[in-house]
Amino acid sequence: MATVPTHDDVFFLGIDGGGSKCRASIYNTRDQLLGTGIGGPANPFHGVQRTLDSIVAATELALADAGLPIEMKSRLIAGVGLAGVNLPSLFSVINNWKHPFSNMYLTTDLHIACLGAHKQNEGAVLVAGTGSCGYSWVNGQATILGAHGFPFGDQCSGAWMGLEAIKAVLLASDGLGPDTIIREWMEETLQAKGVMIVDKMANAKSSDYAKFAILVLNGAEQQDAVALRILEEGAAYMSDMANMLWQTGVTRMSFIGGLSHRLVPWLEASVASRLSEPLAQPEYGAVFYARQQSGL
Amino acid sequence: MATVPTHDDVFFLGIDGGGSKCRASIYNTRDQLLGTGIGGPANPFHGVQRTLDSIVAATELALADAGLPIEMKSRLIAGVGLAGVNLPSLFSVINNWKHPFSNMYLTTDLHIACLGAHKQNEGAVLVAGTGSCGYSWVNGQATILGAHGFPFGDQCSGAWMGLEAIKAVLLASDGLGPDTIIREWMEETLQAKGVMIVDKMANAKSSDYAKFAILVLNGAEQQDAVALRILEEGAAYMSDMANMLWQTGVTRMSFIGGLSHRLVPWLEASVASRLSEPLAQPEYGAVFYARQQSGL
Repeated sequence: MATVPTHDDVFFLGIDGGGSKCRASIYNTRDQLLGTGIGGPANPFHGVQRTLDSIVAATELALADAGLPIEMKSRLIAGVGLAGVNLPSLFSVINNWKHPFSNMYLTTDLHIACLGAHKQNEGAVLVAGTGSCGYSWVNGQATILGAHGFPFGDQCSGAWMGLEAIKAVLLASDGLGPDTIIREWMEETLQAKGVMIVDKMANAKSSDYAKFAILVLNGAEQQDAVALRILEEGAAYMSDMANMLWQTGVTRMSFIGGLSHRLVPWLEASVASRLSEPLAQPEYGAVFYARQQSGL
Repeated sequence: MATVPTHDDVFFLGIDGGGSKCRASIYNTRDQLLGTGIGGPANPFHGVQRTLDSIVAATELALADAGLPIEMKSRLIAGVGLAGVNLPSLFSVINNWKHPFSNMYLTTDLHIACLGAHKQNEGAVLVAGTGSCGYSWVNGQATILGAHGFPFGDQCSGAWMGLEAIKAVLLASDGLGPDTIIREWMEETLQAKGVMIVDKMANAKSSDYAKFAILVLNGAEQQDAVALRILEEGAAYMSDMANMLWQTGVTRMSFIGGLSHRLVPWLEASVASRLSEPLAQPEYGAVFYARQQSGL
């Protein structure tokens, strides 16, 4: 006998998928968090099938964490935010997925991060982690700045700082650039010098580069000229993005991502002073989006 | 009946192996070129077995071109210059190869390019093609500057110019950097704008980036400010390398590689005026090295 779902039967799934992992959260209609789960990498730019597998795995873990049966998966109303789907080709591939949910509302990881940070349908975020970008959402219009990925862009990201650090260390090793405290630290970390650094980084991913961002941040705090040049160039880019995002008419802006707290002091003072703390996680933003789109 | 080789039976093989192809030349003891052959990619950094296969294929083509039987391969005295073997791990792997020649003398592609350019056991080369570097050889001592590979270094190389061009175009597309004529040309070439450029370059190799170097060179000749900034930064690096290489005590310097002729006007005048034309190809330098090492 078919049952007509009541309000208590409706559950929302929020998915935040990125290059290193996929987070899933289950909420009920009263905005209560029931369970969470984490799956593997979920950036379709680096593999569509792996992305879909990671979403399903994270969802099943979240259902278990919530004490809900796995069959409930087919009743979930899913909001899914993924890196990479700002590329139309990838959006289309994922959106055509024969997904196992009741409904799926797909958007970018930036959109859900923004909705989560502000718990309202408008705002802007600066992002600096392994990658970097700026995003605003106002009057149903998205503005994306950067998000070009490594090594094309992502100025001020961890991966960018790491690559700039390696380039500076190699120049210094050749005597073709100023020496820097970063060189000693990097040689110590990698147990390698000069061209052997290249050997160690031969198959490095952007997250491997991002591990050196801390050397730039620490060097800048010690007034190392090379570290200061890298950090000031990166921070100027973030400040420029912030100023352009304010012009879209948003009323609230947050700085998110793993490097955000250490970067705030390097931003233009007028940019730093207008930042607001993020209010919720991207998975909450994904559920916000699913509720908005489904009208539930 | 075994034959004792006479001088006329001795043939030299010169191998110049790089990322896109492998060139082989056969010479006799009177410095006469008998035949040439071209094989596939031969940079062991991107695949050791493919490198060895390319060397053998190029050799067999050169033997055929010289009208010599394929069995002669086992009598060849080979000088082999390869990209990548400045990394000790790769030098060791290739040097331990059970090669099919009579003898094999392995060194870097830079060393044979230098010996070929000067037809003597001393000199320096600046190199700017897909990659870039500087090299000097004097009193049995090699000095290598750069040669760190893309994207770590290779300033002023085609790949570096191409990546810098893409970064500038993406900044301009976001309104976060000055506009440039390179943007229009790149959009026309790729039939893509903004983030779609990233889509097109998703799996690009360094040689794909290098195709955009021409846009930078052409833009600079039209006084485009972005192109000028990229080219002037790259050329300053090459000039710095040249000045450091002169200090090693060499008496002759050449500028080689596919971009060298278009870059000369951008070098410091004092560097450009001291450059000499290269006298022979790297394969000749490889044979020069084999003769020197074998004493034949």
